[in-house]
Amino acid sequence: MSDDAAEQPQPRWETSRVEAFSDGVFAIAITLLVLEITIEPDQFDHLARALLDEWPAYLAYVTSFLTVGSVWIAHHTLFTHLRYVDPVLLRINLLLLLVAAFLPFPTAVMAQSFDASDNAERVAIVFYGGTAVVIELLLRSAIRYAQARPALHMPGVVHGEPAVMAPTVPHGWREAFGTVVYGVGILIGIFVFPKAAAAAYLVVALRGVLVAGSEGRLTLRLRSR
Amino acid sequence: MSDDAAEQPQPRWETSRVEAFSDGVFAIAITLLVLEITIEPDQFDHLARALLDEWPAYLAYVTSFLTVGSVWIAHHTLFTHLRYVDPVLLRINLLLLLVAAFLPFPTAVMAQSFDASDNAERVAIVFYGGTAVVIELLLRSAIRYAQARPALHMPGVVHGEPAVMAPTVPHGWREAFGTVVYGVGILIGIFVFPKAAAAAYLVVALRGVLVAGSEGRLTLRLRSR
Amino acid sequence: MSDDAAEQPQPRWETSRVEAFSDGVFAIAITLLVLEITIEPDQFDHLARALLDEWPAYLAYVTSFLTVGSVWIAHHTLFTHLRYVDPVLLRINLLLLLVAAFLPFPTAVMAQSFDASDNAERVAIVFYGGTAVVIELLLRSAIRYAQARPALHMPGVVHGEPAVMAPTVPHGWREAFGTVVYGVGILIGIFVFPKAAAAAYLVVALRGVLVAGSEGRLTLRLRSR
Amino acid sequence: MSDDAAEQPQPRWETSRVEAFSDGVFAIAITLLVLEITIEPDQFDHLARALLDEWPAYLAYVTSFLTVGSVWIAHHTLFTHLRYVDPVLLRINLLLLLVAAFLPFPTAVMAQSFDASDNAERVAIVFYGGTAVVIELLLRSAIRYAQARPALHMPGVVHGEPAVMAPTVPHGWREAFGTVVYGVGILIGIFVFPKAAAAAYLVVALRGVLVAGSEGRLTLRLRSR
Repeated sequence: MSDDAAEQPQPRWETSRVEAFSDGVFAIAITLLVLEITIEPDQFDHLARALLDEWPAYLAYVTSFLTVGSVWIAHHTLFTHLRYVDPVLLRINLLLLLVAAFLPFPTAVMAQSFDASDNAERVAIVFYGGTAVVIELLLRSAIRYAQARPALHMPGVVHGEPAVMAPTVPHGWREAFGTVVYGVGILIGIFVFPKAAAAAYLVVALRGVLVAGSEGRLTLRLRSR
Repeated sequence: MSDDAAEQPQPRWETSRVEAFSDGVFAIAITLLVLEITIEPDQFDHLARALLDEWPAYLAYVTSFLTVGSVWIAHHTLFTHLRYVDPVLLRINLLLLLVAAFLPFPTAVMAQSFDASDNAERVAIVFYGGTAVVIELLLRSAIRYAQARPALHMPGVVHGEPAVMAPTVPHGWREAFGTVVYGVGILIGIFVFPKAAAAAYLVVALRGVLVAGSEGRLTLRLRSR
Repeated sequence: MSDDAAEQPQPRWETSRVEAFSDGVFAIAITLLVLEITIEPDQFDHLARALLDEWPAYLAYVTSFLTVGSVWIAHHTLFTHLRYVDPVLLRINLLLLLVAAFLPFPTAVMAQSFDASDNAERVAIVFYGGTAVVIELLLRSAIRYAQARPALHMPGVVHGEPAVMAPTVPHGWREAFGTVVYGVGILIGIFVFPKAAAAAYLVVALRGVLVAGSEGRLTLRLRSR
Repeated sequence: MSDDAAEQPQPRWETSRVEAFSDGVFAIAITLLVLEITIEPDQFDHLARALLDEWPAYLAYVTSFLTVGSVWIAHHTLFTHLRYVDPVLLRINLLLLLVAAFLPFPTAVMAQSFDASDNAERVAIVFYGGTAVVIELLLRSAIRYAQARPALHMPGVVHGEPAVMAPTVPHGWREAFGTVVYGVGILIGIFVFPKAAAAAYLVVALRGVLVAGSEGRLTLRLRSR
């Protein structure tokens, strides 16, 4: 253990506090989303209708909640395999948090645009989709970078079976799923029907939650320590 | 222990980070509630009266704080017995957080409706009660699902006395208490007197906090590890 | 250890998650305070003056930050001595969090009242002071309750020296300091000069931070485990 | 270990909860920044333009996110070396959190000032830069204080190599980097071109993130425990 330290003099941190800080940012970003949903005082005369008319806000809330939720699951799954974080991974993680914490803004813009013009919808769809793609790419980068650095892995992973963090299925399509659907969604949103793009975003988020563990963004076989 | 892992190859996570993330979301949802209480600048001429007139906001704040608080206690009690979380429980938990983080919105609507018409009150009562019932049902689902999965329990629970997580009293009525009172409250709110429903919601929340541990949403006999 | 469990069948929880949840609520309550400070668009013509005119908001921010900060320190010091939380302590703690999370509202009211009438200042001072007294009393209750329950203490405290959690100085005056100064502050605020009360609140908060550890809300002699 | 406790009777706390509380405050301060970015309803007619016009808000968001992020990294690095926190360090840490949690306000002021007059920009630049310098100085104070207190260090640091926490490069210039660039930025902002100061702040924040671990605010050689 101390040999190990002597041979790898570059700085690195245990993951616990990086996880705590990331959990905090994800939890807050996911919870702030509700602040964007409001009813104006003059809408209380027809409250039932006003609440129903807020459906774009609910849809945006659920989509963004599940988007951040699926990023959190993937993040959590990744860090289950890691013992250390090095400076590069720390910076990728910080960038990921920066964009994830930004998501409430495009969420609010998308929800509000559904009350406005068709053109506003298109712009909002592209803005939201672009932010979601950047989150997806940063998450992919963090996973790829960590997979290629055995020195950061949990002891069991390093010594026992080096294949645990390696994919057991071809990565290509499964990995690219989110990015491709976001891209197609943006194109449909621009050229066909903006609201269809919002549905595509919800599909990516739902899939992110549903694949959690069943095939995994990382294929993993966890073991009790 | 490693045999155990070999026999159950499906993915699962240790509970610590799920608890940390859930705590974060509960803590933020509970704290954001206060942002809905505001005094307008022109009310400062009669500040004492304005502060007293905010009583529906205080009532809604206390009700929602105790509702989230009792969910947190039940959640905490459940996870005390668990060692692992599997993908299904992770998703039920994420749904529970989604609806709990949404609660500040119906809370604000209910508080504001008390300044508005009788009809607005009825709608707001149903909206709040419906959200609370969904939270209650998701919490029940999480507990039921976890109780039926010994592979997820803490070692002492699995090996020693499998009855620890089992109920020692008939579950039916005690479990259904929250859902039934929410339902009765909604009906009273619609057909009789809306403000009575708000009182019913407060009663469910208070009970949720008061039964904590004394009979428990889970009957539990904790033991020092 | 298991004998201990057999003799005390009432439910209790390890403190870690109660601490995590409380830390979350304190951290958010303390951070939301800044959202109350805003500059209106038309004030940007004379921004330097506008920023200086915000001094009541800064004073209120610092006072409330240090108030919550000193409560957090006392809470942290208390839980350092505890191994378990029982249902009653859990409920006192939840009430403490309920009132602490409410503090941003009286803080905003106090800050805004300094722009308004003398009468508004008096009302705001009483409202803030009343909230602070309730926080103080709930904190005292939690400490007293825990001190009288050796079954909840850390092992070293229970077995080794039962006096560690007992006071080494007469509690009376030192314990009552906060409550008395809040009370005097409220009286001065009503009958003499409202802004003096705000200064008194700042003094209590500063003292709460400064006594941390030097004499302690709990007299404690920590030892490495 | 118990000798150690007998010889140092002054109170001190293990770092875990101080880290958890600090992480919470940093995570919330960093996430609240996004709430300052909003699009007015009438801007939805020209949404693409409105989103582009928000560039000062994005710049301010990224700058403040990276500023808090680099403070968090330095804080995290410091606490990796510490086992205990004493009352003085606890208070410095609380002051650091107080000013860091305040940063969303100068951030919002700086972003809004870019729509207003040249004079407003200058004032906002000084306000933001002043806040950032205070954060920097408090962080320096915490590091200096902790470095000079071996009794607070992790066991490996205390017994093995006392030089681990000592700098291996002259501190002067590297340590002062942030403060000097903030100072120069403020001067350029006042006398030359306000927006150049905003760029300087971004440079300090970026450097804070980029040096993380490579030379470090603390020079550190971490070792596995």
